[in-house]
Amino acid sequence: MSTAPWDDWDHIVKLDPDKTLVEGETFEDVCRTGTDALEIGGTLDVTTEKMQRVIDACAKYDVPLYQEPSNPAVVVEDDALDGYLVPTVLNAGDVFWIAGAHKEWARMEEIDWSRTFSEAYVIMNPEASVAELTEADCDLTAEDVAAYAEIAEHQFGQPIVYVEYSGTFGDPEVVAAAQSAMDDATLFYGGGIHDYDSAYAMAEHADTVVVGDLVHDEGVDAVRETVEGAKDAQKERTVGTTDA
Amino acid sequence: MSTAPWDDWDHIVKLDPDKTLVEGETFEDVCRTGTDALEIGGTLDVTTEKMQRVIDACAKYDVPLYQEPSNPAVVVEDDALDGYLVPTVLNAGDVFWIAGAHKEWARMEEIDWSRTFSEAYVIMNPEASVAELTEADCDLTAEDVAAYAEIAEHQFGQPIVYVEYSGTFGDPEVVAAAQSAMDDATLFYGGGIHDYDSAYAMAEHADTVVVGDLVHDEGVDAVRETVEGAKDAQKERTVGTTDA
Repeated sequence: MSTAPWDDWDHIVKLDPDKTLVEGETFEDVCRTGTDALEIGGTLDVTTEKMQRVIDACAKYDVPLYQEPSNPAVVVEDDALDGYLVPTVLNAGDVFWIAGAHKEWARMEEIDWSRTFSEAYVIMNPEASVAELTEADCDLTAEDVAAYAEIAEHQFGQPIVYVEYSGTFGDPEVVAAAQSAMDDATLFYGGGIHDYDSAYAMAEHADTVVVGDLVHDEGVDAVRETVEGAKDAQKERTVGTTDA
Repeated sequence: MSTAPWDDWDHIVKLDPDKTLVEGETFEDVCRTGTDALEIGGTLDVTTEKMQRVIDACAKYDVPLYQEPSNPAVVVEDDALDGYLVPTVLNAGDVFWIAGAHKEWARMEEIDWSRTFSEAYVIMNPEASVAELTEADCDLTAEDVAAYAEIAEHQFGQPIVYVEYSGTFGDPEVVAAAQSAMDDATLFYGGGIHDYDSAYAMAEHADTVVVGDLVHDEGVDAVRETVEGAKDAQKERTVGTTDA
């Protein structure tokens, strides 16, 4: 089994370049929350200029920095980035979001695949703008999500499966089902993580929890709590594994 | 780089369980054409009973035998099979043929991933029944096909890219473009291969040429010619590589 940077990530902050930080807080504060990585991305109104501003602000701190481009037009080439995490939406209703956008990107640009990695998204909140954009079929059982996770890893060779409830806190049973269907791939969870307990609850099943809106709406103290929740749950899971 | 069975395949015969062989010919004759592997599959009216009959008829000969299921309902579990080559259609218009059918299969069955492998199809002939079924966007330039081949290998970890012109002989420039976009994955070509010259012409670019209708319509002598054409072209390519 090969190792990947995200093998050791318990927690990610996702920064939306179109949103501001809480008044009085800086990107340095965000980098010092204890989070393991920053993902820069967002669905709406993202431009390369806005992306670049966030990259520049975060580059000097010792936190891995990845861009998550929502479409080929916003990809920023910058050595300050550790790489690209490129979403493919397995339950999209429009083929563009599974393979079409990616084909267009490959056609237009010389892609550095040595630092470009693929996230297999399963989008679960039909109210989210990303669900609307991708025409995602969110009417999925835990077994459906587990099956998507399984084909993501085994058929599409995806190193990361991302169960995304953005805007709402998801069903831990669904996340647990996804985890149990996977062997070596890493399970990201995003949506509604806002404090220690919510982070802990999802990190009991997911390998990595992602907070997004929280950093923009509540600020770094709240983020720090979620880092602690995620890391405590992962420690428990590791102890469990060692005991078994 | 890992090795895979198809690394050494120059030629495949694809058997459609819904079609008969030429009068007076047997599956033994097909296996003795010199082809490197048999793929059992077909788009229309395939049933597990018909699949099983072909598997039984071919199992005793020393040619690798793979099922290419067109949908989860026709998968046959049989130890006589060396494995499964599962199509995913990257240029499908309906998400079902990229990830949906596969999710359903994973949900319903325990899949043996150690012998289940994924083929990334790019379907190029809009007149073909498979194009109609999958609502494929066949209006693609050589650059589009190359980009699909690139993301198949690098984003979706597909070991096999399959440029499929079924029913017509394709554009060698398109096949060459796909090959040049790929590193380690294997390029299958199918469509309109009917004699030595047509096999030779595509095998100059593709790693493996596939004949299907030919075995059912013309018979094993014609198939044998295409085996020779494919193998002669591959020998030339190898010499070219060694000289360089």
